[in-house]
Amino acid sequence: MKIVALAGGVGGAKLIFGLARASDTLDLTVIVNTGDDFDHLGMRICPDIDTICYTLAGLANPDTGWGRVDESWNFITELKAIGGEDWFRLGDKDLATHVERTKRLNEGQTLSKIIKDFCDLWNVKHLVLPMSDQEVATIVSTLEYGEIPFQDYFVKKKCEPTIKSFRFAGINNADPAPGVIDSIEQADAIVICPSNPWVSIDPIINIANILPSLRQKTIIAISPIVGGKSIKGPAAKMYSELGIQPSAFAIAKHYQNLIKAIVIDDQDISLKKDMTNLGIIPFNTNIVMKTPEDKINLGKDVLNYIDRIIR
Amino acid sequence: MKIVALAGGVGGAKLIFGLARASDTLDLTVIVNTGDDFDHLGMRICPDIDTICYTLAGLANPDTGWGRVDESWNFITELKAIGGEDWFRLGDKDLATHVERTKRLNEGQTLSKIIKDFCDLWNVKHLVLPMSDQEVATIVSTLEYGEIPFQDYFVKKKCEPTIKSFRFAGINNADPAPGVIDSIEQADAIVICPSNPWVSIDPIINIANILPSLRQKTIIAISPIVGGKSIKGPAAKMYSELGIQPSAFAIAKHYQNLIKAIVIDDQDISLKKDMTNLGIIPFNTNIVMKTPEDKINLGKDVLNYIDRIIR
Repeated sequence: MKIVALAGGVGGAKLIFGLARASDTLDLTVIVNTGDDFDHLGMRICPDIDTICYTLAGLANPDTGWGRVDESWNFITELKAIGGEDWFRLGDKDLATHVERTKRLNEGQTLSKIIKDFCDLWNVKHLVLPMSDQEVATIVSTLEYGEIPFQDYFVKKKCEPTIKSFRFAGINNADPAPGVIDSIEQADAIVICPSNPWVSIDPIINIANILPSLRQKTIIAISPIVGGKSIKGPAAKMYSELGIQPSAFAIAKHYQNLIKAIVIDDQDISLKKDMTNLGIIPFNTNIVMKTPEDKINLGKDVLNYIDRIIR
Repeated sequence: MKIVALAGGVGGAKLIFGLARASDTLDLTVIVNTGDDFDHLGMRICPDIDTICYTLAGLANPDTGWGRVDESWNFITELKAIGGEDWFRLGDKDLATHVERTKRLNEGQTLSKIIKDFCDLWNVKHLVLPMSDQEVATIVSTLEYGEIPFQDYFVKKKCEPTIKSFRFAGINNADPAPGVIDSIEQADAIVICPSNPWVSIDPIINIANILPSLRQKTIIAISPIVGGKSIKGPAAKMYSELGIQPSAFAIAKHYQNLIKAIVIDDQDISLKKDMTNLGIIPFNTNIVMKTPEDKINLGKDVLNYIDRIIR
């Protein structure tokens, strides 16, 4: 089975881990949000791509979900000692990725080529594609600070500002990275990972030509909200601040007219009828992925649901 | 006593350590070669300045003489794993210096200001000045490869190519860094550290206005060559390849008409007469600095010799 998954960072990576381990024969391509990417300390940092790649490479930190396993922090400690910015935590191993990527980007290589090279050297079997080789920057419009770059909102200000809206700077000049449209067209189904709809999935979907090609496919989304709360991150807080009751139903509404099915948690079973009324097939299972087994079980469930809806 | 020392990297740093520890009341300014500086992996790297600063800050690796004590190497290991250049060994702690310096240089700060800020945060009591805030690049003309950048010769090719000559690209447009001329003018004496005359001291001396101001002062040099061999590095090999017999006498000749005195090793005592004939006062002591005590003893000796020659 050929699957294309749309993913952001930590939440997406959990399901990607599960899907990759659920089946030895799965042909999986991950199209990753790059709206979180930013320039910092002279380096181009791509948090979501790195999280997905490290996860598939077996190099990810299982405790944080981001960064490298067995990481050391000598660089950032010394950076702080000489007055440098330490609000974005960069581990010593992780730094190699940023330095080498930045060097190659400055030499004119594309992000997709660089990611491919890294993944080959890390023995990643599955294909990881940035949504675009052109820069797209998620800008968060906040009540308190006006427009601020995504990482300022997400890391520096710890998601505390009140959301008014989002925009994706550069998106009108961004093309899908090579392979993105082809992989969507060839896929048996598309999986929207339990990532943040506003800032992880919307940037991908809104790249020119991606949405029209998705509309030809069978799509299943996994809710990032359980019991009205985000499993991780600010998705539920964002819905509330935008005047929408946060729930798995809000996620279904978000992707209405795009998805054929949604996977929600067992505790949200009461929402299934509302989803059916939207014309979306709801599946329920345990979607809170705490252990590797949780991830693999959800991966297997998702593959089974796909099997049912594409028949 | 006010002393200005001209220094390169590892050899110079040994004496700088000794001078700084030899006297609590010494007013020491170190003017450091920047001809070895280079751009690597998007970072501006200043090996000699960092070695001197780390030494004065108590952060230097006592085994190698360069880099940081208690260093970790996770960055460079991971860089190699993704196909990056690992010929120049960058430690995790050391990297913070390069990243923060490069960021500040790109913001328009001067190298001398950046070094001052770092040294203040590292509690360095003495003043460390780059020879210039403008870039000067030592270029090595070799028999085998033609002209190559200094670090290509020194680190990548391990000093193996045969030397034909040196030049210092950019030196005609380089001014002494703020404080360099003032500190020389106010000094009671100038110390030329046991650094490489060709590639560590000559770049400093050949900056516009530095040589004329040095000519007004009492200068003492410490030989980097003992028994016809370099204590460390390629100085003796360079003299041989340039057709000059390597010896402490060659060092005295190198600095003839500039220095008043030279400090040579006890085992070179037979060369003293030749030096006297050049009009240079020779002092002999143990100049091979293996232990911290060796460095402090030589520091004390040098201060005593200065006391004698400036009376």
